[in-house]
Formats: sequence, structure tokens, C-alpha cells
Amino acid sequence: MGLEKSQIEEKLPDKSRFMSEWYDTVLYEAGIIDIRYGVKGFIVYMPYGMKIMKNIIKLFEEELEATGHEPVLFPVVIHEENLRKESEHITGFESEVFWITHAGRNKLEEKLALRPTSETAMYPLYSLWLKSYKDLPFKAYQTVAVYRYETKATRPLLRGREFLWIEAHDVFRTRDEAIRQTIEDKEIFYKITYEKLGIPFIHVKREEFDKFPGAEDTYAFDTLLPDGKVLQIGTTHYLGQKFSRVFDVKFHDVDGEYRYGEQTCYGIGLSRILASILLIHGDNYGLILPFDIAPIQIVIIPIYRKDYENDKINKYATEVEELLKGKYRVKLDLTDKTPGEKFYQYDLLGIPIRIEIGMKEVDRNTVTIFRRDLRERREIKLTQLHNYIEISRKEIVEVLRRRAEERLTKSYTYINSIEDIEKYADMGYSLFEAEFCDNEECANELKATTGGYEVRGIFLDKKVGEGSRCIMCGGEARSKVLIAKAY
Amino acid sequence: MGLEKSQIEEKLPDKSRFMSEWYDTVLYEAGIIDIRYGVKGFIVYMPYGMKIMKNIIKLFEEELEATGHEPVLFPVVIHEENLRKESEHITGFESEVFWITHAGRNKLEEKLALRPTSETAMYPLYSLWLKSYKDLPFKAYQTVAVYRYETKATRPLLRGREFLWIEAHDVFRTRDEAIRQTIEDKEIFYKITYEKLGIPFIHVKREEFDKFPGAEDTYAFDTLLPDGKVLQIGTTHYLGQKFSRVFDVKFHDVDGEYRYGEQTCYGIGLSRILASILLIHGDNYGLILPFDIAPIQIVIIPIYRKDYENDKINKYATEVEELLKGKYRVKLDLTDKTPGEKFYQYDLLGIPIRIEIGMKEVDRNTVTIFRRDLRERREIKLTQLHNYIEISRKEIVEVLRRRAEERLTKSYTYINSIEDIEKYADMGYSLFEAEFCDNEECANELKATTGGYEVRGIFLDKKVGEGSRCIMCGGEARSKVLIAKAY
Repeated sequence: MGLEKSQIEEKLPDKSRFMSEWYDTVLYEAGIIDIRYGVKGFIVYMPYGMKIMKNIIKLFEEELEATGHEPVLFPVVIHEENLRKESEHITGFESEVFWITHAGRNKLEEKLALRPTSETAMYPLYSLWLKSYKDLPFKAYQTVAVYRYETKATRPLLRGREFLWIEAHDVFRTRDEAIRQTIEDKEIFYKITYEKLGIPFIHVKREEFDKFPGAEDTYAFDTLLPDGKVLQIGTTHYLGQKFSRVFDVKFHDVDGEYRYGEQTCYGIGLSRILASILLIHGDNYGLILPFDIAPIQIVIIPIYRKDYENDKINKYATEVEELLKGKYRVKLDLTDKTPGEKFYQYDLLGIPIRIEIGMKEVDRNTVTIFRRDLRERREIKLTQLHNYIEISRKEIVEVLRRRAEERLTKSYTYINSIEDIEKYADMGYSLFEAEFCDNEECANELKATTGGYEVRGIFLDKKVGEGSRCIMCGGEARSKVLIAKAY
Repeated sequence: MGLEKSQIEEKLPDKSRFMSEWYDTVLYEAGIIDIRYGVKGFIVYMPYGMKIMKNIIKLFEEELEATGHEPVLFPVVIHEENLRKESEHITGFESEVFWITHAGRNKLEEKLALRPTSETAMYPLYSLWLKSYKDLPFKAYQTVAVYRYETKATRPLLRGREFLWIEAHDVFRTRDEAIRQTIEDKEIFYKITYEKLGIPFIHVKREEFDKFPGAEDTYAFDTLLPDGKVLQIGTTHYLGQKFSRVFDVKFHDVDGEYRYGEQTCYGIGLSRILASILLIHGDNYGLILPFDIAPIQIVIIPIYRKDYENDKINKYATEVEELLKGKYRVKLDLTDKTPGEKFYQYDLLGIPIRIEIGMKEVDRNTVTIFRRDLRERREIKLTQLHNYIEISRKEIVEVLRRRAEERLTKSYTYINSIEDIEKYADMGYSLFEAEFCDNEECANELKATTGGYEVRGIFLDKKVGEGSRCIMCGGEARSKVLIAKAY
């Protein structure tokens, strides 16, 4: 393993000290994305990155379909008139919209927006589709890119002008059902992001002044990146009847009355979830991918000592490959690179399980398994291999999740004065729980005086004690909130 | 079945006489797409249509990956400067490009094109990625929407300003390998479009004057729609070094020299393939979907006669459902609609296999199967069910393909004078094989004098006899060509 280590020290910056440099290096070296497209905020998904992304998409889409969502696909362009119909919505997005004004040699009669989000694209059609309470609930999703002219500094996958997401847009008969959907959205997020991808998140309700433009309530999923900043990786919005009244999404109810639909929408930030997986799970050897989304789940590497043994080893390695093919995404690497070079490469790519096969394994009818998450070798009988892989498939994501969760827990503390932030930040804390008055002025002042700490939202399961005071103004506290720096 | 028939006569126009009206009705009634988005040439994929589309995409993507293609994703926007680099290319597309000129309240410094096709988006990056002959062949694909400002009349799925396709862009060391790829592209098309989707096609080489802008050679896949017009559903282009020289896609070859890559690109017209499936296979009862792409492959319908039997029937029907679930996409319809209403609905949706279960089937441990393609009922022992479905899965697409192929063959004839076109057209022919001089003037004159018949391209496997004369000018014939009206 000497070769590996020295190579790594040459190539990958130390992740704990230079997260940003580590990230840029790994994105390129592992073939995730290329940032050299030449249009600010637009990136190219390279083959390995796109394969991971497709596996992530598959997990979410399956779960959405299992919860009654159906796939749809709406155009990328939105009529200016529709985009402007809901006033809070357009006010929120106006400065971020890309406009198509010309086609061929003609000026368009009405300019078209590239979708920044699809409420105003979808709901006019919902209005035509939904007629009766029998058509409800109506739950639909699309997996698409959206376009926002970000003026903040863009960062690959973290903040782009084109990013991938899944957006689900649901309509219900009653408010209760809509509220229940916001809870189901959280459960879907838990089941995939947390359980299958190993990414812990904090669920908060955004403050009134920080809601999605046009929503009644916004709930957000923030995760913690290794540099101590939080990243919003998903949101779910209770829209109530705000959009349904504007776009006339109404239905004939059981009692014969016409009523406006109760709506929710849900955004799953695919680009950012990919970034989180890379940044949170990776180490100084490169990526560590959860088993379910790894493009190669198991790599088999023959270890030759003496030339005359090679055929035997290759034959045995091929048998092991056959054993696993069909059930797993497995690759047997018979190229003439050295084992050290191969170890280095597959470590970088984050392949969860590496199988090493030399004469010892051939003779003893075993394989040596190297787990990327634990960086431990173990010899396993061939008869135990399937069993071991099935256990590892679950264990790997548990290990990754536990590590991430420990870091999150260790970063978290309660504070009762604004001075605590600096004090605890110096000690390595980055997530702060505090009492807060829910006023925008206080949030702005907090951000200004602390060098960028933001009120991220209200903890739904934590109540303020009687007589509690806002950490900023000392007025009556209404909520317990999360305070953190954010991407 | 009386109810069914009368309902159908009310709802669906006769397909053989009113194809266009039939198509519009089915698109909406079956929930394939909605044309009421309000922006010309842009349509909405409704849930049922999107499910079919996703299944079609899966078939092609799997086959592309099996032939060594890797997924990528490039931005939807293209720098004006890059789009203009290859002069034939921009000349061909200039009049069709949508331009983004503004973002937020700003005018962009350089306007951005919405991708009409992605050569000029991808190859600048290929130039950075590909360095050595060891990096070749490089084969990548993306499944995306492309944007063309069509000035011709748009028709849903057949001609839109936004349409879905898969584009594969490959780079090779040698010309031979690139040419071989154009043959592999044809094989992929054969394996999926023809074998799995039951759509026959004619493969021709487009005339020089009809090539893809910037290509050395263009090969096209045309299918025949029921109205006698052909539809281009795919193309593959041999680009040679035309783009690699412009975008500097070169590599360090075995002999130490730098050489430009030999390129091909391949477009699989997903929207048009979906349209072909609907139009070619459908009948006056609605759609008929090949088993592999049907969102519901098998529907189970209980047939009640006396109330006290309902529980028994439902229990048995649920057992049959359990038997099939997991292996097939199966739906048990226990709603309180009448069997006739259900038959009508699932016929319209094109569900390949319907299972009817009444007391007779419960008592005899059988099911009655209705095959949508044959419109025949057959009683099958429960123990034979799996077997029967596996056979039907293959048979259904064979039946559909045979029907389509018969129509194509019957529409096809050889002609040796221009007057033959009208004569044979009156007899029901619509595809004509003729000798041709390969000159653009003759093709234009042919179109003008015959009311729209076009030279679609050269048959690669048919040679002209000695002394053959061009059907238009009487000059020396160089090729045998396909002549047809086209979408």
C-alpha cells in the first residue's frame, strides 16, 4: 500500500484542512463533472458523475411512485404572462429568470422564461385536468433541470445557474391532506437521503420572511458540510390555495360545491444531494459511495506474484465475477496496471467493495475483501461471499451515516447569547440552537453582526420556554431556531 | 361487448379514414400528452404518456450502455461563439435557434442558444478529455430535449419546437471504426425499434444535398405512418474529421503522431418513436402497446353476476394479482365501474393483456384472457398462466410488427416513370423505388411536379443496372432511391 499513499499525498489535498480544493480535485479526477464548459454556472456531467446521478434519481423516483406520484414532463419554457400571475412568486424570481426573446431571425411576440421552478407552468394545465373530487389527490413529479440566474458566486453542484432536481406538485381536497403530504415529503427524504444515501439533515420551518415566494409555509432540509456550513438540499412547501385561486385549480366536491385545490410542492435538490454525498462521505483517498448508488459496486483485482500462476488467478477471478454479475454492478479489472495503481484508482472512485484475488485465495477457495468505508481487509470463504456482500450493502451506508451524524451532533450546541456564537465557533461548533423572536430585522442584524450566521428556520418539535427572550433583541421569543452559516 | 362498441363509435374517429382526428382524440383520451400548454410547438407529457416514454427510454439506454456508450449531460445552453464555429452547421441551424438574450434585469454580454443538437456543446469538452488513443473509442449519450424554432406547421410528437431524443456522440481512432459505428447504430435501432417496439423502418443514406449540416454522410431511419407519409425517427451521421478539426478533438496515436478523431453522432427521435407506436399499432378501440413498454402490462377485471359471489371472485382475483406482481406491471381493478366500461377504458389505453375473472374461472381454477392485439378470448388454467404470458409478451410485438410490415410492403413499389407515382398512389401505394441521378435540381423538380413527393435517400443495398436513367431528367442514374411524402 506504500505506492497508494505516496500517490495520494501528491494528488489529493487534505480534506479536513482544504475541503474546497479537495472537492475541486475529486470532481475532476473521479470524472464527476467538468467545470470548463465556459458559461458561468453551467457544468457538464461526465460519465461517472452521470451514472451516480442516474442511480440517485432512480431511488427517489421509485419512492415517489410508491407514494402515488406519477411522472409528467412540462416544457422548459414558461409564458411570461403565466409566470407573472402570482405576484409574490414573480417578485421572488424576477431577478433570477433567463429570458428567450428571439428565435431564428425573429423577435418573439412574447418572451419566454426558462423554468426557474414549474408552478406557473403546471397549474394552468392542472386547472384543465382536475374536475372532480374523484380526480384527487393528484400527485405528479418531474425530473428536470431548472434555471436561475444566480448573482452569488457559483460553485459546482452547490450553486449553479442550471441544476437538476425533482419537483413534485400535488393537489388535495382538504388542507389536512395537504399538510399530511408535507409530512410524507419528509418521510420520503428520510427514507432515501438519510437511510439509503447516509446524509443526515435538519428539518426546519423557514421563517415567514424566508419562505418560497408564493407559499403559505416552507419546510427545508439542511445538511451540514464538512466546512461547517449548511446546505439546503430539499424543500417542501404548503401552498394552500394561493396558486389554485390564481390558476383556477378547482374541483367539484362531494357536496356539489366548487372548491379550490389545496396544494403542496416539493423540491429534491439532486445536484446538491450529489455534492453532499461526495463532500460528507469522502476522505483523503477520494470518494466513498453508498453501495446502492455506486456505478461499480464491487471491483475484482487479481494480484499476481509469479507469471505461471496468472491463468489460474484469472480463471478464478472470472468465476467470482460470474458469481456476482447480474446481481451486482461488478467489474473485473484485468488491465496491466499494478495492483497499487488499481487500488488508488478505485479508492478515488469510491467503489464500496474491492475483492483481491491472488494464489492464496485460489488455493483456499476464498477472496480477500477490502471495504472502502472501513479500509479493512478480511478473508472470506467463497461460500460466504453473497452473504457478506448483502450484509455490507447495508453496513456501508450505516457506517457513513453514523460518521456524518456524529459530526453533525458534535457541531451542534445551544446558545443563549449572541457572543456564544463566536466563542463556540472557535471551539469547532457550527450549528446553534437559540430562542428567537421571528422578526426579519433581528435576522438581518444577526447576520450582519456575526459575519454571516443566518437564522435557518424554526425547529418544529422544540417549544420555547415561558419568558424566553430573543437572542438578538431581547424581546419575547416565539421559536427555537437553527442558526448557521449557509451555502 | 355491445356497450363497448357503441361507446367507441361515439368517441373515436375511424382510424383508417380519419387518422389525424383519431390521433388527436387518442392522445388526449388516453392521457398521453396535452397540447393546450399555450406556447406553439411545446406540449405536456401527461402521466400515462410519460410512463410509456420512460419505458422506451429505458430500452434504448440499456442497449446503448450494452454497446459501450456512457451517459453524460451537457447544458441546455450553447455559447453563440461555439455554435458558429462549424460553418455548414450554423448555416443549417441558424434559422431554427432559440436565443436567450436577457437574465433577470440584465442583457447578457453574449447571447446563449438553446441546444438544437449538441455537437457544438460537447466537442469542445471532448477536446479536453481525449488525449491518447487509449481514451478511444469514446462513446457517450444523453437523453434530453432539444429546441428548434420550426416554421412548418407543428404536430404533437411529430413536429415540435421542443422534442425528446437521445443523442450519442462517439469518437474513434480510425475511419473504419467510425463507419462500423454507423452500422452498430443501425443494429441498435433494429434491436429496439423493430424487435421490441414493432416499428419497421427503411434505412437510407440521405442525398448529399439533404445531409445533416456538417456531416460527411447521413443515414436515416424512416417509418411509414398509416396515412402513407414517412416519418424520420432516427438518423446517424458519419462526421469524419469535420467537427474534430474545428473543435480540436485530437489524440496522441500509437505511433506518436497527433491525429484528429473520427466522429459519429446518432439521434434517436423519442417523441416521434412514441408517435409511431401510437399511430402504427393503434386501432379503432384505441392504443395497442407492445408488452415491454406498457405502463400496465396486465389488467385484472372481476366479472360479478350475483352479489354473494363477489367476495370469492375478489379473493381469487387478488391471488392472481399476487401471482403476477413483482414480475409484471399488473393492475387489479376493483372499482365499481361496469365490466364494459372497464373493457372500454383499458382497450383505449392499449393494455396488452386483460384477465377476466368470474365464478366460472374461480370454480375451474382458470382465468379468461383477452389479448388486445388479437381481440380474442381464451380460457387458461392458472398453472399455465405464467407460461402463457411469457409467450404472449413475445407474440404481441410480433403480431404488431407483422401487421406494420405488411402494410409497408403493400405500400411499396418500383416505378420507372414519374407518371407512375400518381397512378400507383391512386391504387394505394405510397413508397416508391426509382432510379435517380442524385442531383438536387431533380429532387426539387420532383417535389414540385408531384405535389410533395420527396427523394428520401439512397438504398445502400440496391445497385442501379447499367444504362439506367434518372426518373426525372433521363440522365445517367447513380442510385436507387426511396420516394415518398414525408412529415
